[in-house]
Amino acid sequence: MSLIFYFSPMSTATLTSIVLEELGVPHDRKRVDLKAGDNKKPEYTKLNPNGKVPLIIHDGTPIWESAAITMYLGEQFGVAKGLWPAAGPRRGEAMKWVVWTNVTLGEAVYRRGHFGEWAAPDAGNPKGVAQANKDIAELLGILDGALAGKQFLLGEYTLADAHANSFCDWLRHSKIDFSAFANVNAWSERCAARPGYQRAMSFEMG
Amino acid sequence: MSLIFYFSPMSTATLTSIVLEELGVPHDRKRVDLKAGDNKKPEYTKLNPNGKVPLIIHDGTPIWESAAITMYLGEQFGVAKGLWPAAGPRRGEAMKWVVWTNVTLGEAVYRRGHFGEWAAPDAGNPKGVAQANKDIAELLGILDGALAGKQFLLGEYTLADAHANSFCDWLRHSKIDFSAFANVNAWSERCAARPGYQRAMSFEMG
Repeated sequence: MSLIFYFSPMSTATLTSIVLEELGVPHDRKRVDLKAGDNKKPEYTKLNPNGKVPLIIHDGTPIWESAAITMYLGEQFGVAKGLWPAAGPRRGEAMKWVVWTNVTLGEAVYRRGHFGEWAAPDAGNPKGVAQANKDIAELLGILDGALAGKQFLLGEYTLADAHANSFCDWLRHSKIDFSAFANVNAWSERCAARPGYQRAMSFEMG
Repeated sequence: MSLIFYFSPMSTATLTSIVLEELGVPHDRKRVDLKAGDNKKPEYTKLNPNGKVPLIIHDGTPIWESAAITMYLGEQFGVAKGLWPAAGPRRGEAMKWVVWTNVTLGEAVYRRGHFGEWAAPDAGNPKGVAQANKDIAELLGILDGALAGKQFLLGEYTLADAHANSFCDWLRHSKIDFSAFANVNAWSERCAARPGYQRAMSFEMG
């Protein structure tokens, strides 16, 4: 078994870093220098034509998209460790939250950036930012409702929590207002208290 | 085993409809009237708090997000039928294309809509539409490259093809230019020739 993890600190690859530390799976870490454009060079784009991190290579097969990677690693290494449900409806619940994070919450968050701080001069629109902020608040309300009366999304901790919470870390870093979402904030504290999360964060800072 | 499929014709639920017809899994179809707002009523939002289709209920568990549903149904019913790879790196390849469709391609397509035809008065920006069109063309180029010399994304047909191709159907319907992507167009013809696709389309039209 060989597992290579291509990453860049403080990027979407942080989700994968936390997942790998939770699983404790041996792997080689390869840092991709985004500022130097290493992610756009042919030796990288032949592995991931999107030119993005994260990317894993498992036994020679490149797998990209952080949501696919979380579910894939969960399925491969997480079931025996109690971090990913066995095949069945409960796994479907974990999958829906991982996908929701990147597809539905992610769409609104990227839209906020494209209408606002990432927009080229005269290419944005503050009304689009306001609409995105409204949509993000509604989505965080859905997450908050799902966590009511629960410690974690499926009751017990799974990699769906690692994934969704790490995404929320990025949203807080992007100055999205979390003050109305008490269940989400308490859950984030529980996720951040885990040794796997803390090991991954020490890599980010190092 | 009980499987309920909540759908609306000509929506993202079409992806799931094709997947179900390919699998040939018995299920109850429940049409959700989006114009009447049935998707926003409490009896629906308690099943899917996002108020969207598709939604499946498998043995009592609600699973939403079309990408999660495709992968879930593949895992549950597709392996024995040769429509979804068994657990392992090859399944990871199928997962990365399903997720890429909704996350990466989807983000650019939704952004195009929000900057353009879906925008409230004075809330869009034609420059944002132009950038989204450029990004969509680049992404379709990645898909086209992945299909070079192959019949389907993984060589043989899988539900990843059903999923990604149905999404491309929607893009063509949205007047996105596919003329430069000969491999994608030939692949779409192969996908559309399958009996499962044609059964699902006859439900859409009926």
